[in-house]
Amino acid sequence: MATVFEKIIDGEIPSTRLYEDDECVVILDINPVRKGHALVISRKCYPTFTDVPMETLSHMMEIARRIDQKQREVLGAEGTNIMINNSPASGQEVPHLHIHVIPRTEGDGRTPVMPKERYEDGEAARYGELLRI
Amino acid sequence: MATVFEKIIDGEIPSTRLYEDDECVVILDINPVRKGHALVISRKCYPTFTDVPMETLSHMMEIARRIDQKQREVLGAEGTNIMINNSPASGQEVPHLHIHVIPRTEGDGRTPVMPKERYEDGEAARYGELLRI
Repeated sequence: MATVFEKIIDGEIPSTRLYEDDECVVILDINPVRKGHALVISRKCYPTFTDVPMETLSHMMEIARRIDQKQREVLGAEGTNIMINNSPASGQEVPHLHIHVIPRTEGDGRTPVMPKERYEDGEAARYGELLRI
Repeated sequence: MATVFEKIIDGEIPSTRLYEDDECVVILDINPVRKGHALVISRKCYPTFTDVPMETLSHMMEIARRIDQKQREVLGAEGTNIMINNSPASGQEVPHLHIHVIPRTEGDGRTPVMPKERYEDGEAARYGELLRI
């Protein structure tokens, strides 16, 4: 079944487009964290960050950098959050790869709040053994 | 002045290392959102996402994908958040480029909480004009 992003790319659902090429389409998130919040969406439907060819991902990151630059120039953004939620367990809402580019200003209260865990003695070393690549 | 990451890369400050090569070093975040939370750090100190050469950034994303894969295999992660906080205004705490790779499981309560804004009538179109690249 087509996701909402495929319908947007096909023009079946309207969107505000900031850019497009053969590999990706950039639109405004209609439910923005800050106004100007953009989504860099792969043109082809790769469900997640894990599935996309590395060349396409690199290209999408390059476009995300251009959007970041533009947000600084025209909105006076002082920073951005670049976020990829990878799989539903991490908060990915549409199963079609997209990169969030969120324009930020000092004191806007949007820095993501995420509770922390704490390693017991020796536990970080054990995780280190497990996760070495 | 050297950041904490330069001191970690130089071995002056201890860390749990998961990987390293000529372009980047991967360590465990000592203050993890979930245990196993990793940081892919550029070996050379580029302050932000905006400053790093595209080839280095692409390589770092590729390593982030390998870490994501490993977190799924050995920790049973069901997803990850890939996050780059770009500039202090967005919550970047160390001025040395790093990519967060946060392992997630369904219902762990770590999906980033970020309040939303709302576009007035016609406002999204105006932002679209401004931000087109």
